[in-house]
Amino acid sequence: MPLQDHHQLISVDDHLVEPPHLWEQWLPADLRDRGPQVVEEDRGDQPPAQVWHYAGRRFPQIGLNAVAGKKPEEFGIDPVRYDHMLPGCWEPEARVIDMDIDGVQAQLCFPSFPRTAGAAFIEGVVKEGDDPKLALACVRAWNDFQLQEWCSVAPGRFIPVVMLPLWDVDASVAEIERTAALGARTVTFPENTVPLGLPSFHTDHWDPLFAAAADAQMPLSMHFGSSGQGPLTAPEAPLAVVITLFGCNSMYAAADLMFSPVFHRHPNLKVAFSEGGIGWVPYLLERADYTWERHRFYQNVDQTTRPSDLFRSNMWVCFIDDEHGLASRHEIGVGNITWECDYPHSDSNWPNSRKRAAELLEDVPDDEAQRIVELNARELFGLPR
Amino acid sequence: MPLQDHHQLISVDDHLVEPPHLWEQWLPADLRDRGPQVVEEDRGDQPPAQVWHYAGRRFPQIGLNAVAGKKPEEFGIDPVRYDHMLPGCWEPEARVIDMDIDGVQAQLCFPSFPRTAGAAFIEGVVKEGDDPKLALACVRAWNDFQLQEWCSVAPGRFIPVVMLPLWDVDASVAEIERTAALGARTVTFPENTVPLGLPSFHTDHWDPLFAAAADAQMPLSMHFGSSGQGPLTAPEAPLAVVITLFGCNSMYAAADLMFSPVFHRHPNLKVAFSEGGIGWVPYLLERADYTWERHRFYQNVDQTTRPSDLFRSNMWVCFIDDEHGLASRHEIGVGNITWECDYPHSDSNWPNSRKRAAELLEDVPDDEAQRIVELNARELFGLPR
Repeated sequence: MPLQDHHQLISVDDHLVEPPHLWEQWLPADLRDRGPQVVEEDRGDQPPAQVWHYAGRRFPQIGLNAVAGKKPEEFGIDPVRYDHMLPGCWEPEARVIDMDIDGVQAQLCFPSFPRTAGAAFIEGVVKEGDDPKLALACVRAWNDFQLQEWCSVAPGRFIPVVMLPLWDVDASVAEIERTAALGARTVTFPENTVPLGLPSFHTDHWDPLFAAAADAQMPLSMHFGSSGQGPLTAPEAPLAVVITLFGCNSMYAAADLMFSPVFHRHPNLKVAFSEGGIGWVPYLLERADYTWERHRFYQNVDQTTRPSDLFRSNMWVCFIDDEHGLASRHEIGVGNITWECDYPHSDSNWPNSRKRAAELLEDVPDDEAQRIVELNARELFGLPR
Repeated sequence: MPLQDHHQLISVDDHLVEPPHLWEQWLPADLRDRGPQVVEEDRGDQPPAQVWHYAGRRFPQIGLNAVAGKKPEEFGIDPVRYDHMLPGCWEPEARVIDMDIDGVQAQLCFPSFPRTAGAAFIEGVVKEGDDPKLALACVRAWNDFQLQEWCSVAPGRFIPVVMLPLWDVDASVAEIERTAALGARTVTFPENTVPLGLPSFHTDHWDPLFAAAADAQMPLSMHFGSSGQGPLTAPEAPLAVVITLFGCNSMYAAADLMFSPVFHRHPNLKVAFSEGGIGWVPYLLERADYTWERHRFYQNVDQTTRPSDLFRSNMWVCFIDDEHGLASRHEIGVGNITWECDYPHSDSNWPNSRKRAAELLEDVPDDEAQRIVELNARELFGLPR
């Protein structure tokens, strides 16, 4: 009898679509006219598309993959206008109603147009020569919107997440401290910083940032694709190949971190992988330990801690629909598994998330089920009951 | 009581180090002085390195990862001279002795210096402007060596494998037909052709080649890394990260093939993944089916066959040491699992391969154990008992 009525579903991976007024409202007055803006673009016979413009570039998908409420047969074209999406995509009050319909107590809502870890602003500065002062203000505006407009409509119903100005470690530390004081509970951080043009986990570049996040008890939430690099196999490969392989990005990041100095230097730092699934974990941990047994001697690798121990002490994974993963939960670590809703993306089971979660957990004892859907996330993100 | 005395271990993934005389002996006389040659390179105080030179380029590792017989504490530096390796690396008679020591009945020996699917010759023509006539002769020479010098010393103890001149589909078809008549049982084929500068599995480019391989009942053996692309995360990442993530290359290839037209057009074509492990398979198949349920409608994807069904009918995977994979064998398909020795690479358990296989199969019923270590490979590669 899993999923008792008193078990609350805490989702660690969802998405909000930025409303058109976001930067107009939250940027300082002197930068307001240079912030991201939604522009109506003519499409001939069809209704005009609404497209974000920023720093001379256009970002065609206002609500990338925001297909909640559609049938799979209708998937395929990302919405190009706000009125093609459910209002819950961009209005927090409407979101809470959709969460209630879905049986979900709390959500963690990542950015959409700037990408899940804010790559639009980061790469803009690192690779495109954007004005870092403006980009920093845009990052802070998104965070202020998240904390003071999105999450504040329903305290306890959201896990407040903030993005960082990653081109500047000192500014990132300051933003962690500023937002922690405002109630932020986690940082969205790229699963790999190298494709963004930034130093890797194997350098000491990020140490002040990781120390600040650990001090603030803000886990790093690493969403699939936040590196800007996806599992592309071929130019003609159908999108289904990439969607199938999402989890490989999390496998890469987990292996990268297990053999990096990050958790030795920052034992209290926690990492939560988002939208990567869980069924691959037993294979990866066994493989990492096997590799460590044979290959640690000649490499700059911790000689005393097994990679799987680092995983279990410092990393969390989440699932939407992963029967093999749940059957393997003791090999993964019941304490390392969380649940996600993924509203409003195509992987989500909305409006049947709770129904589907109950089916998946049918053979899982009550105490383990509650750990997985609720208590692990509450403890990880400091969300009191 | 698994691994009865009459169960024979058939390994589907091993490696031979090309002996210095290979191309001197097997190239046509008029091309002999232009073929790959082992050159002694001065290293000051240390013994000279032996390095393959071909087409004006040097290939530093004569025996990449040929560490059989060394302890993990001695790993780290690839051998640079033949006398740093066990003779079994490059002498077929010595190899058979090492197989007997290891309790292994048969091996499938991939190329070393040209890379596992002959990328040195393929990329040479496609990207470096090498003479295709010379490159074709080098490919044929390797195949003649494999069939008439390596495998012929002990019939039934090797699975004869050949490489193809993949820059030329017609020449590849001709080489399949030529070598099939000489006893070849499988083709080494890249897990992804795109990084080699060639068309993908999603085009019709390979149809004549795939048809010829299916007609000749020669499965495509796809070795980890044969695409030339590895799971690199960062310039400073220790090699352990890449070694841990080998299996992701096979995951990419399996997903790529499951959503490609390859098996619809060539239902008798078989693909065997080498050195990719098996523990990831249940996760990937569940994820692929989930993706197919939701995302097949708007894509050029087979609308009637589930990806997991394509996997079970056309793909095989193999393991060295994979406890989670063996525990999940019914989710993978007992008929799709084979075993590998990986001599003389660092993943191998030589000289304890049979001992370790017996430990891993301790809880597996006899009939399933024999399928996994012997019968699946015999049937797949047409190796009579």
